[in-house]
Amino acid sequence: MKTLDVKSLDFKKGNGLIPVVIQDFKSKEVLMVAYTNEEALRKTLQTGYAHYWSRSRNKLWKKGETSGNVQKVKNILVDCDYDTLLFLVEQKGNACHTGEKTCFHNKLLEADRLRKL
Amino acid sequence: MKTLDVKSLDFKKGNGLIPVVIQDFKSKEVLMVAYTNEEALRKTLQTGYAHYWSRSRNKLWKKGETSGNVQKVKNILVDCDYDTLLFLVEQKGNACHTGEKTCFHNKLLEADRLRKL
Repeated sequence: MKTLDVKSLDFKKGNGLIPVVIQDFKSKEVLMVAYTNEEALRKTLQTGYAHYWSRSRNKLWKKGETSGNVQKVKNILVDCDYDTLLFLVEQKGNACHTGEKTCFHNKLLEADRLRKL
Repeated sequence: MKTLDVKSLDFKKGNGLIPVVIQDFKSKEVLMVAYTNEEALRKTLQTGYAHYWSRSRNKLWKKGETSGNVQKVKNILVDCDYDTLLFLVEQKGNACHTGEKTCFHNKLLEADRLRKL
């Protein structure tokens, strides 16, 4: 496992934004996908709590700032292209704003037949 | 868990592309992140093997088409905004083109201090 710093990340490819996969560090469930920029990432590293960049509201936000469902970040991994991050987190409450445990709570209808292949 | 079809997905937000988190269905390891469009998704559903859209080569590709490290897709979940997918796969060989098991094989240096927070 190689170690690299924030300055090595490729923020350019996504116009300043990098997608982040957020995974529960214990259950290994994938909770959500969000976006970060250098500012949000530094805020995450400083505070220990996940901060992201909202593409719709065009602002930095702390996950759980209104709901209280914060994410304590235990570790951060970087992919082979340095353009995607994986946050291992301790999730307080539910991750999804709909009240579901994870954001991936819908099934794709057409995927049903995959089981028969 | 709600069920929805391919036509309900929000391909518009990402100019025709949707990010996909790929997770090993047994170990629950996050293997990689890739992008799909409607064509690549339909090809995945037809064949049972993961196909993606390459943003750098601007073409549809089958994961493992040259390396043999294909991904048999067991299930597909959709997030709350219908703009991100989660593929649960059976990975043949290693997922990363570098030969590593997963693409997330680098540590972020500054994340070391998170353990002390």
